[in-house]
Amino acid sequence: MASAPVAAASTAETAVVWQQMIRTSLQKNKRLPYSKYVQIATVRENGRPANRTVVFRGFLWDTEKLTFVTDTRSSKVQEAAANPWCEVSWYFPDSREQYRIHGSLSIIQQNHANEKLAKARVSAWKNMSDGGRTQFAWPQPGLPRPEPEDKSPYDLPALTAEDPVSANFSLVVLDPLEVDYLSLKGNIRKQFQKQEGGDGTGSWSETEINP
Amino acid sequence: MASAPVAAASTAETAVVWQQMIRTSLQKNKRLPYSKYVQIATVRENGRPANRTVVFRGFLWDTEKLTFVTDTRSSKVQEAAANPWCEVSWYFPDSREQYRIHGSLSIIQQNHANEKLAKARVSAWKNMSDGGRTQFAWPQPGLPRPEPEDKSPYDLPALTAEDPVSANFSLVVLDPLEVDYLSLKGNIRKQFQKQEGGDGTGSWSETEINP
Repeated sequence: MASAPVAAASTAETAVVWQQMIRTSLQKNKRLPYSKYVQIATVRENGRPANRTVVFRGFLWDTEKLTFVTDTRSSKVQEAAANPWCEVSWYFPDSREQYRIHGSLSIIQQNHANEKLAKARVSAWKNMSDGGRTQFAWPQPGLPRPEPEDKSPYDLPALTAEDPVSANFSLVVLDPLEVDYLSLKGNIRKQFQKQEGGDGTGSWSETEINP
Repeated sequence: MASAPVAAASTAETAVVWQQMIRTSLQKNKRLPYSKYVQIATVRENGRPANRTVVFRGFLWDTEKLTFVTDTRSSKVQEAAANPWCEVSWYFPDSREQYRIHGSLSIIQQNHANEKLAKARVSAWKNMSDGGRTQFAWPQPGLPRPEPEDKSPYDLPALTAEDPVSANFSLVVLDPLEVDYLSLKGNIRKQFQKQEGGDGTGSWSETEINP
């Protein structure tokens, strides 16, 4: 009798060095909830930079892609459509380390064609707190705010079994191409660069550079 | 006998609302030394964003301009020369506030023509710790690092009375045009925009917008 594949235990151990370093940094800084807050820069349609704080929501499956969530109506969705390039600056206060992660963004909206990514969006929604979910029922971000009497708390969006996720909810996927690591404690700086394979895979080089 | 002008006490009280808010935020978060760390995004010459952590070094004189310092050999100096636009994302962990500060950068290098700015650069150098100053004597940032045996600590740069500041030391001045404020605790978001006056001055408008 052939042995059955053990799907649940077969999650590939990734060999990406900088990703393992980030996992260690998250562990070292876990007493600080905001060590999962990163700053993500994009380029506006007028060629000027934009920069804002977002929450790291984990790596996508067993890849080295980073995930975040956003409101589909926010300006970064439009910006990423016109220019997908981004750079995350991620500072870990306790271990005094910085990662600069340069790559391209994909926005996974409602009705995304790729079924696996559509499912990842639903999972990200399920991982949100009620408070976090409620924000997607708020009026459009960035528009002038209604008068004070209208500032009552908003209800959770009315969701159906067919569409269990707010239409305003997008998953953001960052596909890294270059990572610049700096340790202020150790005065160490390393640059990791991806050499693309033909099939979306790739290998990472590592170079120590002057801080 | 005429009373002498009291220069030290004459610092103009600024009426810029968001600047007073930042001062309050700095006060509320002062137990965290890294609440002075901000992320500054610029645009690379290839049109992609760059983003890194820098230390806020105070406002310039009695203006609302923010100052930082950098190594003249770093890539952000080149980037700012080609495209001066930047956006700072500044998150205060204890008070759970974010400021996004959009504006343009000036780099004040050695032999800057404006005498007042040249003096501000010397003051910024004097405010650095010895450890901070030593970094400007290090080999060029971002180049491959010498072999381990050459990683001895570097000496302070040899400075003369005529040139008391390392040639690699630049003052960075951010002239803000737009500030986006977000309070996660209060679910409050405000946008401040500068209306330029003819003579480099200007006034600030304030709008409450949806978070």
